Amino acid sequence: MVDEVILLGYWPSTFGVRTRIALEEKDIKFDYREQDLFNKSSLLLEMNPVHKKIPVLIHNGKPVCESLIQVEYIDETWPGKIPLLPSDPYQRAQAKFWGDFIDKMVPGLVRLMWGAKGEEQEAGKKEFIEMLKTVESELGDKTYFGGEAFGYVDIALIGYYCWFDAFEKYGNFSIEAQCPKIIAWAKSCIKRDSVAKSLPDSEKVTELVPELKKKMGIE
Amino acid sequence: MVDEVILLGYWPSTFGVRTRIALEEKDIKFDYREQDLFNKSSLLLEMNPVHKKIPVLIHNGKPVCESLIQVEYIDETWPGKIPLLPSDPYQRAQAKFWGDFIDKMVPGLVRLMWGAKGEEQEAGKKEFIEMLKTVESELGDKTYFGGEAFGYVDIALIGYYCWFDAFEKYGNFSIEAQCPKIIAWAKSCIKRDSVAKSLPDSEKVTELVPELKKKMGIE
Repeated sequence: MVDEVILLGYWPSTFGVRTRIALEEKDIKFDYREQDLFNKSSLLLEMNPVHKKIPVLIHNGKPVCESLIQVEYIDETWPGKIPLLPSDPYQRAQAKFWGDFIDKMVPGLVRLMWGAKGEEQEAGKKEFIEMLKTVESELGDKTYFGGEAFGYVDIALIGYYCWFDAFEKYGNFSIEAQCPKIIAWAKSCIKRDSVAKSLPDSEKVTELVPELKKKMGIE
Repeated sequence: MVDEVILLGYWPSTFGVRTRIALEEKDIKFDYREQDLFNKSSLLLEMNPVHKKIPVLIHNGKPVCESLIQVEYIDETWPGKIPLLPSDPYQRAQAKFWGDFIDKMVPGLVRLMWGAKGEEQEAGKKEFIEMLKTVESELGDKTYFGGEAFGYVDIALIGYYCWFDAFEKYGNFSIEAQCPKIIAWAKSCIKRDSVAKSLPDSEKVTELVPELKKKMGIE
């Protein structure tokens, strides 16, 4: 049987990018279907009835939800190609720890970008910078988080990269000044075909922010 | 080499219970070390420098943090005994989805229990009940979340059970009236040695709440 792989996404999503990159790394052909999050399709509602969110990976008709779970699923389903997670249980647990940590950066980013003003926005920015510095110290002087091998933690973090310009513009700060090694790492990542093909254009993302704020009823 | 397994925990923690149950299910001997969260030990700070939280599983000197990651690690490290996660990638992804969903119940519970008053507390309670009903519909008429086999999702949820009385007392509602199948499921779970040995006493947990609120500077 030929695998039927469908990905429901929304182009600027930091999470959808992860799943796209994982599929590209594994060289899996997939049918990408852009979703309107302000007018959700019956397919999206049927495939992710609990969260009603993208990305949804639909493999032979069956949905897998949550981007990092999708990355693991892709790695386990197509193990023959480049591994995304280490095989050693301890190293796997460490990778999952950092994936989870990177997901925990979202509340700070939400306060930085969406709705919060003044002190609350500053607190969101501070939280993001502190967490990114923690991630940077985990990266250290390695090429990728797993050393020479691109994988799960890189995929988890690189999804945010196309939003860095927007974070800087709305937070009025420089990520490179705070975390130069993260920027160097991101520049290595975008040399990979999988990332270059999947990552949205930063400029378009930044331009979209006012429109998104309007749609969300902010400002 | 004999495995040295140490668990840093705090007795009423819903998260620490998960790791204890997983170790008990696998019949792994471990050295449990109770932690004072209001005066953290140097061992805890050294073993979980990022979050500084329990539970921490220390296996042959190396720490694994985050309870559900610990449960997976235990399952992968001692695979010979009863499996906690299914071997099929799709079923594994579904189990992880529900584990993640159960973790997402925490913010509602925090608002129900810690600090929020009036409308905000009511909103936290409502969110918890709605999420528990969603979990209940996933359980359906099965004995355990995985069918006849006790595993990962059961472990994720049963950690909350010793807090149910406290949730009811402080939220002034009956979980059984809202989610009778969850209560029946919990009663099946506590018949297992692993759960009976690990789950703290509900009454002691409920009695602890005023003391915890005082220590946290609430009320």
